Amino acid sequence: MKKVKLRWREKEIEGLLIAKKGEYLEIKLKSGYNIMLNENEVEILKEEEFKRSYARGGEGKGEVRIIGCGGTIGSKVDYETGGVSPQISASELVAQYPEIKDIAGVETRMLFSILSENMRQEHWEKIVDEVAKAFEEEKRVVLLHGTDTMHYTASALAFAFRGMPSPVVLTGSQRSSDRPSSDARLNLLNAIYTSKQEFGEVAIVMHSSINDNEGVVLRGVRARKMHSTRRDAFKPINESPLAFVDFKKGIEWLSKPSKPVSDWKVENGFSRKVAMVYIYPGIEEGVFDYYKSYDGIVLLGTGMGHTPTDIIEKINEMKGIVVMSTQTIYGRINLNVYSTGRLLKKAGVIGHELDITPEAAFVKLSWILYRTKERQEVKRLFYTNMANEFSMRSVI
Amino acid sequence: MKKVKLRWREKEIEGLLIAKKGEYLEIKLKSGYNIMLNENEVEILKEEEFKRSYARGGEGKGEVRIIGCGGTIGSKVDYETGGVSPQISASELVAQYPEIKDIAGVETRMLFSILSENMRQEHWEKIVDEVAKAFEEEKRVVLLHGTDTMHYTASALAFAFRGMPSPVVLTGSQRSSDRPSSDARLNLLNAIYTSKQEFGEVAIVMHSSINDNEGVVLRGVRARKMHSTRRDAFKPINESPLAFVDFKKGIEWLSKPSKPVSDWKVENGFSRKVAMVYIYPGIEEGVFDYYKSYDGIVLLGTGMGHTPTDIIEKINEMKGIVVMSTQTIYGRINLNVYSTGRLLKKAGVIGHELDITPEAAFVKLSWILYRTKERQEVKRLFYTNMANEFSMRSVI
Repeated sequence: MKKVKLRWREKEIEGLLIAKKGEYLEIKLKSGYNIMLNENEVEILKEEEFKRSYARGGEGKGEVRIIGCGGTIGSKVDYETGGVSPQISASELVAQYPEIKDIAGVETRMLFSILSENMRQEHWEKIVDEVAKAFEEEKRVVLLHGTDTMHYTASALAFAFRGMPSPVVLTGSQRSSDRPSSDARLNLLNAIYTSKQEFGEVAIVMHSSINDNEGVVLRGVRARKMHSTRRDAFKPINESPLAFVDFKKGIEWLSKPSKPVSDWKVENGFSRKVAMVYIYPGIEEGVFDYYKSYDGIVLLGTGMGHTPTDIIEKINEMKGIVVMSTQTIYGRINLNVYSTGRLLKKAGVIGHELDITPEAAFVKLSWILYRTKERQEVKRLFYTNMANEFSMRSVI
Repeated sequence: MKKVKLRWREKEIEGLLIAKKGEYLEIKLKSGYNIMLNENEVEILKEEEFKRSYARGGEGKGEVRIIGCGGTIGSKVDYETGGVSPQISASELVAQYPEIKDIAGVETRMLFSILSENMRQEHWEKIVDEVAKAFEEEKRVVLLHGTDTMHYTASALAFAFRGMPSPVVLTGSQRSSDRPSSDARLNLLNAIYTSKQEFGEVAIVMHSSINDNEGVVLRGVRARKMHSTRRDAFKPINESPLAFVDFKKGIEWLSKPSKPVSDWKVENGFSRKVAMVYIYPGIEEGVFDYYKSYDGIVLLGTGMGHTPTDIIEKINEMKGIVVMSTQTIYGRINLNVYSTGRLLKKAGVIGHELDITPEAAFVKLSWILYRTKERQEVKRLFYTNMANEFSMRSVI
């Protein structure tokens, strides 16, 4: 991507050259809108290439490290196919939003550039290493990440760190950043602002509503993408948001996040042999055969955590650890109320009384099973509140 | 369960004898609260057994048939184990709530008595037959059903009928009906009231909020249990509620339900060979091997309907029909925006542009695949809006 100054029909225009499509140049204006200009009508006056990494902002102090992991916030429209694919580097993004300079000195690093539906344990581990490195260098961290699985990665970070010296803030966008309606700008600016606050947790910062005016700070391990397209897709599950944030006005805390600590530790590594299985009417026990060699599975049961009675025996035979979560998404597991729950509990299913999301349960189980497969120890760790991933009292 | 009149410490008490626990009798009072009385202090004055079926209410006209299918609304606490299991017959329930007489003449029929996590295609088919029979006999229908899978059964009914002569209203409760805090009473009364309205759709009537004062009428095929324990657990997905209902004050319609029709038809039958598969980071393609012999599967993809790129080839090889839905629950599938979606669409995955819930998609696919396995016809039927299960314009 290039920064350009050009003359078109007697006018001087400055902006970013986003793409060439046939004989048309697409230019992103400072207003955030894109225009298409016929190449033959344009005279380029000035052209400037961006540096690919470590574009420093602010007063030259790169106190916030922006780590690009791909996703829509780092994507642009492919004008050949009409689809969106990840291409813009983080440094280009920063150059695109000069307001960053008023918030923080930043530096950028492109870790990888993939759509978040392709993120998996190996990527979580690379991200954890990269964040640990940033912590060692006393940097604050903003992660640009695709929204599809942002809450999974946020959970991975939450479980991999025992204490944090400063926040890790994940942000992304629901519309690619070269579209006029993109939410990337506000999310990025609010995320950088939030990363400068004094707390020690993994947060997700996205739009608080469909209005383009305020961000919401969610505890990463308790957040979930709850809408496929809306800008305010991320919601806190079973708790309130941590804060609302407006980089121009400040941050308003609704609840107290964990304090930053100087004696933080990183414990990286996630088992690949963990699955999520959705329970549905008529599910056959044969479905579970594939998972025989697995370390663990998270069931998305119905209601308080149920399955059909006729598969409980099969669940009982599973060698791996079986965790119950609920497809209602909201609410708490209770395996004591109904006969089915009691049978599942007897079969060794864990998760009773927790209100952890299915996704956080999956990541937590994957983290635990990388360390131990000893049933009692897995159970003890799963019931240990490691990153505020569950609460023992429900918020209504 | 018996209706009893008894003397205890000089007082006359009327109520329902719910259980004996040791030397204590548990009596449900008209107030809805339960008391425990020592058997030795009690003199039974009058005792009356309930009839097991067709307990008529109102003016002797059984214009509303209450069909019991089990679930919490027909459950009571087992004082041996502390668990809840389905035992109370529908007629007992009606006798328990004499206010019913002011709303409608009712008759009850106990179809079966199972917890809803055990409901499957064969039960849907029996319920459909039973509802068709009630329609033939010009009855209105209220179904008592467990909440865990109420939205699956509601969808089954919605797809099995081409037009309805009157509503079918499903209701249930989140707390068993012999508990003082039970929501059964309000739900049952509001459901009966709603069944008397002039419309021809499957509705779910449950609490509209955690206050015990108003019901909400949801389109069954668009509703979903969104909390494991709250009384207002059921929410409409991607549309507004149909109405709010208070059996004492009336019904307030928010949107127009389908009109009742006299030339309704029933098309019963659901394929057993349909599954739901939840997509998660690192999901392996081997997971799909079990479903080789299946007629179809519904994926719960991420975001607008994505899976990791490396399993798309496997999906492409599936003999059965693959439908995409989203684990965000809310929002629309769009397989045109990102490269992953476009690859999935190319692999023959259907569901693009629909905002149907994963559960309704599962039931619809099961209904379609019972009738045809011809790919183009399945696709045509899936994209046909049969019961308002999707909309083409999003409600924000």
